[in-house]
Amino acid sequence: MAEYEHILVKRDDATVTITMNRARRRNSLTAEHLAELRDAFAEAGGSDATGIVLAADGPVFSAGHDFGDVASRDLVGVRELLRLCTELMRTVQSVPQVVIARVHGLATAAGCQLVASCDLAVAAESAGFALPGGKGGWFCHTPAVPVARSIGRKRLMEMALTGDTVDAATAADWGLVNRVVPDAELDDAVAELLGRATRGSRAAKALGKQTLYAQLDRPEADAYQLALEVMAAASQLPGAREGMAAFLEKRPPEWPD
Amino acid sequence: MAEYEHILVKRDDATVTITMNRARRRNSLTAEHLAELRDAFAEAGGSDATGIVLAADGPVFSAGHDFGDVASRDLVGVRELLRLCTELMRTVQSVPQVVIARVHGLATAAGCQLVASCDLAVAAESAGFALPGGKGGWFCHTPAVPVARSIGRKRLMEMALTGDTVDAATAADWGLVNRVVPDAELDDAVAELLGRATRGSRAAKALGKQTLYAQLDRPEADAYQLALEVMAAASQLPGAREGMAAFLEKRPPEWPD
Amino acid sequence: MAEYEHILVKRDDATVTITMNRARRRNSLTAEHLAELRDAFAEAGGSDATGIVLAADGPVFSAGHDFGDVASRDLVGVRELLRLCTELMRTVQSVPQVVIARVHGLATAAGCQLVASCDLAVAAESAGFALPGGKGGWFCHTPAVPVARSIGRKRLMEMALTGDTVDAATAADWGLVNRVVPDAELDDAVAELLGRATRGSRAAKALGKQTLYAQLDRPEADAYQLALEVMAAASQLPGAREGMAAFLEKRPPEWPD
Repeated sequence: MAEYEHILVKRDDATVTITMNRARRRNSLTAEHLAELRDAFAEAGGSDATGIVLAADGPVFSAGHDFGDVASRDLVGVRELLRLCTELMRTVQSVPQVVIARVHGLATAAGCQLVASCDLAVAAESAGFALPGGKGGWFCHTPAVPVARSIGRKRLMEMALTGDTVDAATAADWGLVNRVVPDAELDDAVAELLGRATRGSRAAKALGKQTLYAQLDRPEADAYQLALEVMAAASQLPGAREGMAAFLEKRPPEWPD
Repeated sequence: MAEYEHILVKRDDATVTITMNRARRRNSLTAEHLAELRDAFAEAGGSDATGIVLAADGPVFSAGHDFGDVASRDLVGVRELLRLCTELMRTVQSVPQVVIARVHGLATAAGCQLVASCDLAVAAESAGFALPGGKGGWFCHTPAVPVARSIGRKRLMEMALTGDTVDAATAADWGLVNRVVPDAELDDAVAELLGRATRGSRAAKALGKQTLYAQLDRPEADAYQLALEVMAAASQLPGAREGMAAFLEKRPPEWPD
Repeated sequence: MAEYEHILVKRDDATVTITMNRARRRNSLTAEHLAELRDAFAEAGGSDATGIVLAADGPVFSAGHDFGDVASRDLVGVRELLRLCTELMRTVQSVPQVVIARVHGLATAAGCQLVASCDLAVAAESAGFALPGGKGGWFCHTPAVPVARSIGRKRLMEMALTGDTVDAATAADWGLVNRVVPDAELDDAVAELLGRATRGSRAAKALGKQTLYAQLDRPEADAYQLALEVMAAASQLPGAREGMAAFLEKRPPEWPD
């Protein structure tokens, strides 16, 4: 694996864990940190792993952009930084693996955006979520994009306009995370949900994830056009064939790659 | 009415009940079963009924596609089957009647898609909902289309990627069904909700339902363009005229057809 | 300020309160009433206020269109009325201020649409929400547009097809309003939430609100294209600069206009 300065990448069996490792800077996202995350997701995406955990070291999940990095940039420079950040979010959604956020502590601004961009998310009771640009400075325009697609409109407006922190239980109630568990149970809950989400044929699941993102946010008829063609093609994949055969023969499936 | 082999169609007053009647095959959806459902919905759609109940016989609501029917098909054959399935879902949404799902037992894959595609749904406590392709074989690409438009994104991802069953109370909490009731109260709850949803002018209500589906999933400004023109035209319908006159004259309305 | 007949407009510090003042007609929305509301929002929008409260006098928040005004209109006349109504809804969303609905009593049809169109909403326990066209007369086509974008699809269908009233607690659970409080605490709750939502740089917040509405309802990639460009530009605004500088210098921000 590549050498990284700001993150830790670990592989256990079929799971790659990418850990933000700038605890003393609240895991804020400088250009270098963003680029490493993007590269690590792309590298894990190209591997034969089936799941990716996005985690963080230290008391804060991620404070979002590092103002020390932003404040000195002009328009062109900030645009460059945000393109990199958006590329990371898209990479999280486009890799074939299931990506799950393991969230403890605060996830704010682009940190909250990361959680919203992961396929799944489990929060510890200590977690909190905020779009703090709403407090009045640099508005969280891009973090609001995936948050708006995870929670209802009035709740988005409250988060985006007030900038205040939503606790983990509220985030679960609103659908920003899948569940909330005591901090001591966070690793187990992440492993349990990821285990269930990564079962079966890797190729079939990858096509499934990528097609979900492609059909969301579109008029239903457009979504059907796409999903129908993919599902017909997917029926011919070894994974689908084995799943159906095992069901019909009343035996456990033996999943191909 | 037409003769059907896999379904039962019954008319009581203004309600048509279409019951999937392949209990011993878990109401799985072969091409023949799908075609009968589509035809029955189209037939009821052309009648003067005001409501349609979609129900199922036996312990399972519907297990989705019949793998015995799918496994032997090539790409062209599966595509044909999925086009038929999608046509059924669109017919459910395009008929002028209010369609309500009466769900007991498991509704999985295309069975879950049917529930998501009905205008309204009442679940018994025994009901469960799953996109079981997430367990690893043939991914539930098309069932995820209407489910994605009923529940939040993280919840969709959990259903689609894990394939595990969501119980009735959770489905109601997430908005996949309108309510959950004890099994013994299911028929009463369906009749009660359908009764309230089918009151009034049939023509006005039909235009209402069809315009709702046409405006959903679109940018708000586009939705307004459509809804405004329909609403202006609808104001001239006998039903709207009578509703306003009755209100202004402080008398109960006498609804035209 | 302009003179109005059907509404009261009051300015306290940085907040403009627009109160519907046709209590004896249940604050129904004649063309004149709609035009005054639109003009008052546009006037407040052009002022240096930071927040707008939409309130109502009397026991009913708003009963929607005044059937006495609608019933005598032909297609062209109703279309004109609905264009005016839609213009009001768009004005609420396009003014640079944060707009909060203060809802007590019933908000029905276009009254419910107003609540759904405000950025934020606080409901008293006495509040109720309905799309009463679902009872069978003039279907609530345009009110359903913003309601559909605030709550889940099955819940929208229930409101739109039955026309029955949803109580305040259910509306909060579904995300139609941000919170519900005892009637006696309504003013305090509105002031508290609006206070948190209007902190900071007025220009940055205005750009934030307007970009949120522009990116909603679009495929995620399209939303990012817009949000990224705005966020890059916004980083150069005095408000964003001051927010970052204050954070880096560990001092409270001094917000520019």
